[in-house]
Amino acid sequence: MKKNKKVNAAILIIGNEILSGRTQEKNVAFISNWLNSKCGIAVEEVRIIPDLEKVIVQNIKNLSQKFNYVFTTGGIGPTHDDITAQSISKAFKVKYEYHKEAYLILERYYGKIKFNDGRKKMAKMPKGSKLIYNPSSAAPGFIIRNVLSLPGVPSILNSMIENCTPYLIKGSKIYSSTLNIFTVESNIAKNLSFIQKKYKKFVDIGSYPFFRLGKIGVSIVSRSTSKLKLKKVSQDLNKFIKLKKIKILKT
Amino acid sequence: MKKNKKVNAAILIIGNEILSGRTQEKNVAFISNWLNSKCGIAVEEVRIIPDLEKVIVQNIKNLSQKFNYVFTTGGIGPTHDDITAQSISKAFKVKYEYHKEAYLILERYYGKIKFNDGRKKMAKMPKGSKLIYNPSSAAPGFIIRNVLSLPGVPSILNSMIENCTPYLIKGSKIYSSTLNIFTVESNIAKNLSFIQKKYKKFVDIGSYPFFRLGKIGVSIVSRSTSKLKLKKVSQDLNKFIKLKKIKILKT
Repeated sequence: MKKNKKVNAAILIIGNEILSGRTQEKNVAFISNWLNSKCGIAVEEVRIIPDLEKVIVQNIKNLSQKFNYVFTTGGIGPTHDDITAQSISKAFKVKYEYHKEAYLILERYYGKIKFNDGRKKMAKMPKGSKLIYNPSSAAPGFIIRNVLSLPGVPSILNSMIENCTPYLIKGSKIYSSTLNIFTVESNIAKNLSFIQKKYKKFVDIGSYPFFRLGKIGVSIVSRSTSKLKLKKVSQDLNKFIKLKKIKILKT
Repeated sequence: MKKNKKVNAAILIIGNEILSGRTQEKNVAFISNWLNSKCGIAVEEVRIIPDLEKVIVQNIKNLSQKFNYVFTTGGIGPTHDDITAQSISKAFKVKYEYHKEAYLILERYYGKIKFNDGRKKMAKMPKGSKLIYNPSSAAPGFIIRNVLSLPGVPSILNSMIENCTPYLIKGSKIYSSTLNIFTVESNIAKNLSFIQKKYKKFVDIGSYPFFRLGKIGVSIVSRSTSKLKLKKVSQDLNKFIKLKKIKILKT
């Protein structure tokens, strides 16, 4: 039997605009879904922090030790509040310098005359970084050690995510199965708890209330690296749902 | 002159469904905006963590020491994966027990016959908690020490937020001013950096690209507890924008 390999990641969202509530965060769901479905990597922690060097340095040190990968978003643009690359350099005690290839890419994109200081700044990275190419707006992200830095603008980040693949070791695929039923959580809490205990080591079961078609319901989401265990959980769930005469929402 | 009082907070989002990307996080922007505008409290860190007791306990301990207030969302419902209240009890080494008033509220809401174990669970809290009333679905949140626990469902959380007010010490109001201009960041990076340095201690200036009316632009957001300094920054910004003949987006 293939050994079950767990690979995890953290996401570090860098930006005052998210913390202040000015901008709605949108990258976590996208990155998590992509890592889950394409790489078998589970995101186990997210942090949102301000554009402060000291805070970024601390978090990079801490998260890069705790998780297999750390994805940062934001703070790699041309302005004074974009300090992700220099902060990661400090965290890893490496030089913050021009990346030759990044410099050439940006110079080609803007043309020599329009390649001003702000734009040049986007070619500065921690020494030893490898590039994560950017098909939509040229300025590349980078990876150093286990930290991958991406921009904060969702449309640009989305266009770059596939270019992270070469740098990632994949984990076992995480399967999930959802059952939507018309009931309230407290009506099934006991049964769910029993089934969760039975499959404790193999399957994670979550329950989430919803409102749909004017009715209250619950989504039961089971997640596992084993298709077989997931099937068994599904059988157990269906058994008690039938017994309690709860209606299932067919989608 | 009134002394400038800084009050800060962290938000701890508890829930596998957010980490896995299944559910889009929506509470951070709402809570941050409310704390900012109504209480003069700045959110300085957000963490999203899984439904794991050990992880919740660690984060409660850590964040409640670092910040004036910690807001938790999620994990206070009736099912097995709702373990926020018991985890906070562990973090603060207090009993996890029925809160008398919460028990009465829930019993009245559901009626004695329908008040089953799952529903009773929602009345269990860390000993010494005070209630945060819930006008939309009865089950109250709670505050113990500097930790305020709210549910994860945005509509319910939104209906409860005003009931946090009695427990919060207010900070100095944080004013913000936004200038939307039609240019690219790298064209103004130098000027912004200069102005940011000039007002370093008093004003935070952020720059955020946008796409509107088919054109590329930048939002310059300045934030400060001093209206006067904000006005001065605005004057400086307008000076160089006029000089560079950049168009302003009038809203």
